[in-house]
Amino acid sequence: MKYWFRNDYSFGAHPKVLEAVCAANLEGNIGYGDDKYTDRAKDRIREVCGCPDAMVEFLAGGTQTNVVACAFLLKPWEAAICPHSGHLNGHEVGAFEATGHKILTVEADADGKIAPDQLVPLLELHKDPHLTKPGLVYISNATENGAVYTKAELTALSEFCHANGLYLFVDGARLGCALASDANDMTLPEFAALCDAFYIGGTKNGAMFGEALVITRPELTDGFFRMKKRLGAVMEKGWIQGAQFLALFEDDLYFKMGRQANQMAARLQAGLKAKGWRLWVESPTNQVFVIAPNDKKPVLDEVCQYEDWCPYDETHTVVRFVCCFHTGEADVDGLLAALPNLD
Amino acid sequence: MKYWFRNDYSFGAHPKVLEAVCAANLEGNIGYGDDKYTDRAKDRIREVCGCPDAMVEFLAGGTQTNVVACAFLLKPWEAAICPHSGHLNGHEVGAFEATGHKILTVEADADGKIAPDQLVPLLELHKDPHLTKPGLVYISNATENGAVYTKAELTALSEFCHANGLYLFVDGARLGCALASDANDMTLPEFAALCDAFYIGGTKNGAMFGEALVITRPELTDGFFRMKKRLGAVMEKGWIQGAQFLALFEDDLYFKMGRQANQMAARLQAGLKAKGWRLWVESPTNQVFVIAPNDKKPVLDEVCQYEDWCPYDETHTVVRFVCCFHTGEADVDGLLAALPNLD
Amino acid sequence: MKYWFRNDYSFGAHPKVLEAVCAANLEGNIGYGDDKYTDRAKDRIREVCGCPDAMVEFLAGGTQTNVVACAFLLKPWEAAICPHSGHLNGHEVGAFEATGHKILTVEADADGKIAPDQLVPLLELHKDPHLTKPGLVYISNATENGAVYTKAELTALSEFCHANGLYLFVDGARLGCALASDANDMTLPEFAALCDAFYIGGTKNGAMFGEALVITRPELTDGFFRMKKRLGAVMEKGWIQGAQFLALFEDDLYFKMGRQANQMAARLQAGLKAKGWRLWVESPTNQVFVIAPNDKKPVLDEVCQYEDWCPYDETHTVVRFVCCFHTGEADVDGLLAALPNLD
Amino acid sequence: MKYWFRNDYSFGAHPKVLEAVCAANLEGNIGYGDDKYTDRAKDRIREVCGCPDAMVEFLAGGTQTNVVACAFLLKPWEAAICPHSGHLNGHEVGAFEATGHKILTVEADADGKIAPDQLVPLLELHKDPHLTKPGLVYISNATENGAVYTKAELTALSEFCHANGLYLFVDGARLGCALASDANDMTLPEFAALCDAFYIGGTKNGAMFGEALVITRPELTDGFFRMKKRLGAVMEKGWIQGAQFLALFEDDLYFKMGRQANQMAARLQAGLKAKGWRLWVESPTNQVFVIAPNDKKPVLDEVCQYEDWCPYDETHTVVRFVCCFHTGEADVDGLLAALPNLD
Repeated sequence: MKYWFRNDYSFGAHPKVLEAVCAANLEGNIGYGDDKYTDRAKDRIREVCGCPDAMVEFLAGGTQTNVVACAFLLKPWEAAICPHSGHLNGHEVGAFEATGHKILTVEADADGKIAPDQLVPLLELHKDPHLTKPGLVYISNATENGAVYTKAELTALSEFCHANGLYLFVDGARLGCALASDANDMTLPEFAALCDAFYIGGTKNGAMFGEALVITRPELTDGFFRMKKRLGAVMEKGWIQGAQFLALFEDDLYFKMGRQANQMAARLQAGLKAKGWRLWVESPTNQVFVIAPNDKKPVLDEVCQYEDWCPYDETHTVVRFVCCFHTGEADVDGLLAALPNLD
Repeated sequence: MKYWFRNDYSFGAHPKVLEAVCAANLEGNIGYGDDKYTDRAKDRIREVCGCPDAMVEFLAGGTQTNVVACAFLLKPWEAAICPHSGHLNGHEVGAFEATGHKILTVEADADGKIAPDQLVPLLELHKDPHLTKPGLVYISNATENGAVYTKAELTALSEFCHANGLYLFVDGARLGCALASDANDMTLPEFAALCDAFYIGGTKNGAMFGEALVITRPELTDGFFRMKKRLGAVMEKGWIQGAQFLALFEDDLYFKMGRQANQMAARLQAGLKAKGWRLWVESPTNQVFVIAPNDKKPVLDEVCQYEDWCPYDETHTVVRFVCCFHTGEADVDGLLAALPNLD
Repeated sequence: MKYWFRNDYSFGAHPKVLEAVCAANLEGNIGYGDDKYTDRAKDRIREVCGCPDAMVEFLAGGTQTNVVACAFLLKPWEAAICPHSGHLNGHEVGAFEATGHKILTVEADADGKIAPDQLVPLLELHKDPHLTKPGLVYISNATENGAVYTKAELTALSEFCHANGLYLFVDGARLGCALASDANDMTLPEFAALCDAFYIGGTKNGAMFGEALVITRPELTDGFFRMKKRLGAVMEKGWIQGAQFLALFEDDLYFKMGRQANQMAARLQAGLKAKGWRLWVESPTNQVFVIAPNDKKPVLDEVCQYEDWCPYDETHTVVRFVCCFHTGEADVDGLLAALPNLD
Repeated sequence: MKYWFRNDYSFGAHPKVLEAVCAANLEGNIGYGDDKYTDRAKDRIREVCGCPDAMVEFLAGGTQTNVVACAFLLKPWEAAICPHSGHLNGHEVGAFEATGHKILTVEADADGKIAPDQLVPLLELHKDPHLTKPGLVYISNATENGAVYTKAELTALSEFCHANGLYLFVDGARLGCALASDANDMTLPEFAALCDAFYIGGTKNGAMFGEALVITRPELTDGFFRMKKRLGAVMEKGWIQGAQFLALFEDDLYFKMGRQANQMAARLQAGLKAKGWRLWVESPTNQVFVIAPNDKKPVLDEVCQYEDWCPYDETHTVVRFVCCFHTGEADVDGLLAALPNLD
């Protein structure tokens, strides 16, 4: 039996989330999200976000949520600005372009983060009406590289966006880990206040599936349900999403799970370094990126599930280990024990 | 407490299906459908369909499955022929057109079925290259009105399609009830052999969610996974779909549930007629359509969950009662007892 | 040499229009419509339409103009209501659906016209958020059958649209013939005031190519140029469109040509009736629809260019003869002389 | 009166091309490209390209042609690989993405050219089915920077593409200048044989408008007319395109004009250098890129039409002068005389 560090969607739901789904299973509920669980979960999310007027809608997965939200916010001739490494650009098989929109990429720093400076020349260039009009900025928090935006960084981006007629959309597939990280200095309401729209990722943090999209500005939300349906994203038994999110935001479960995943990642990083393994980045969240010697990969393959991330050099590969709510100390220590010292 | 006849997605999963999901919950499984449950479920479906070479893929809901499948099968300039009352045309907020395809509608008969005769003039007209090229025929079995195609009818359509360069796609949201109906005279393999593609609906027959798309002709399937991902339809924790479909096709559960729903609908129809209520159509499956006097609607509202279907005349409305795997005799008899005699 | 009645795009430009193009040919002009001819032509069109604040933009052809305009005016989840016989629905290979929008068809009367009554049930049905939202009404004037809307009819439609949150878009491919018809009772400014958007067709009335799109409500026009470019509709040497429209609206040329075409069509209809040929509709504009005996079609084929329109019965076909600015009395009388008496 | 070096679409048609259009103007011709001029022009182009079986179709402009052709060749989930500076990526307001396809950019060299080496890592990465499938390579010849591909370079790209399941599409907006350049070492048939599809640009080389798309592999062309119509690109009076291209390929006019434009650009570059102006690139075709001191821009503005290309440094801007068939020695020498010496 191997240790599972392949990603944060290798396990199903947290037991309390699964319990909530099971409890509602044969009750009888109205479809399409017009049920009591969905209503309560929306209210609860507005409450924890400090956004009493926000629109909250549940969708099934990350790609779907990114695409529906960004396509909804933009006019047909508007583009999304996205870090080159952003999920919307790099890992969605052109799902966003399938809605007819262009992505304008900017190079992120090593952390996967972007800052206003990088956007200025792009905006200057795109004043030309023969080019698409940038309409929103897409970022991820945590980023694809595991980093988190500080309040100062996000404030700078948010102010820049609003000064330049851009919406700020944050992909929160790993928002639980981001806001539970030691590197984070924002509350969820502070975070929400800086975004025009974002989603709270359930799939990667304790739900069977499901993401909660929050559009903080109610004046932007007219027609959203039709757009969601038009893109195949309305679930018939919608209460299954609602019940899960109610459970996720009870007793701080969502952030407890984020902390657990982060702590296990920190333990793993410390342990790896102690054994002479080099990290590619120091990650403050649940993803661990390691520069693995290629000749040690057979050992890795034998003892754990993990992922190749990208080539590093001729003799090394960057590999990724991901911790989640279900990762325990025994998993981390077991993996570490199974790996050789490198120095 | 009201009786639930609102639709066939008011309850979650059949207990055996839910049990299968729970059992796999914290096992550790590979994402995106590359897991053992998905593999087995695909094999099992190929087996029960008698299509050893078919492609089987799981999607989350009916609209999504219709759209992904039909858009995948067509060239950009090709259209889907669809009964005017077909779900693809009437109930999906233009989701199919959102992929850039036109729908060419034909008027179905009262049952919601279409036959080759109706397609001839449309095909003749569309030889003109200034018009879209019809590329597939979309039908539903059971139809939106609860009817089922006979083997002779489906064979005629299938032969016509193949003689005219059209694919035949069948929306099987209610395939369980269709093939379990007394009005049906086809086995699942016989049915499958007549279709180029179809889906086996899980959402409306005992799954939490999920549809199994079957493309019976393997030469048509190259690139499907990317198309599915591009349209936001790949589930991260794909084994949840696989585990459900494995359970659905164990011990004939899928068709047992279809029969149960049909029998309850037959009992309801008989009981309603005995009480003087008029049926809009005689349904051999799980949907019951009743011409309800408007002055009796307050009673209906009080005793059950149901749906208005369409206006009938100035004093009557067609209403729909839907039975499902979870509908029992007590529900039917309770509803009947609560309704007044009409004559 | 045959008589040309095949359509109103069998000849190039009116000599004065061609002369204007030739005069500007080697002058040196700025591209993409930023030239003096385009500016003046836009001003001139605003003037003749009595819409000093309207946006005027030139496009290359009818399908392109319909698609760019309607897709521009709608949100992604909104649909265009269109007579079943409307060009947008029937003759554009799904070009509008290619932009992701659904068309909701209504049956027009024998003239190809629609009235508010027909729209009421459709709007009622589409209050359901599981269906597309109707966003505009598309009609043609003259219609595909050659009829023209009266001021009362267009006013009724316009008021209905505005009371129901719909834009009214008029395809004016044959607007010259429509407003020059004896059956018309509107001036161009009166017509324009009833429309949210329409186009003045050049291609079918004396231009080499080109349509002038007018959006009468300036608050709707932000971003139009980018949308036009995005759909491949911006012409590099834009002054060629501008110069043509300047010529078309000098000395009333545009409507003189419309009258000429209408008069020739009237002469042809009178002559055909005198010879015992039956008309399919009485057309007040430039299209003539005749119920031709199939055994006379070889004669037609020999003496003229015309088009089959639709089957009539087993022994007759509806055929179409179209007159244009270049059709003269000699053409009409020549054709008539070449046709046999039918009674 | 200023000298016109703004671009190669500031003048209309070459007099012989215009003459051909005028001669056909009132003849009577069948619409939509079913006319004798179009037929002959297609035959002529097949002949000069040495591709007797190629499909030739006329479209109105460069963006339209790129988009229709590339979208036609690709499956929905396939992407076009394009130099970052390529017109398809940078100057078409997302017109290609509007058809639902992603563009994968690669950095071109200073000339705007790309080579197989740059494509290898991108292809490697995109074996992952969670990413789009690269389906074609888009390049321009001449490039956006005025460079031309050698036969060796194009052969290497072509072979690489075909070895990797990619189509090679060449944007030939300036193909006349490219193949007429001293830097070119290919004949048109040699060029054509290396491409799966390309277009021969008319708009920028002596036509009023119009591009001739050539798909050299007839097995790829089924359905093209419908795709063209669906994207609004079928011209009603299609013979106007046909007549122009017939004239363009009579007596080698097309390449004579290319040579004329190139020679004037060479004369301008030599003259500028003699006066101490620095070139940004040495262009072998009709575009001249100059590093202009910002304090000399008022002089430029006064004496000529030109374009700012991109910022160079704090005191310089790259500006572009473009020569065309209509540029004469007097224009070049007049401009040079009006400019100050810089050293």
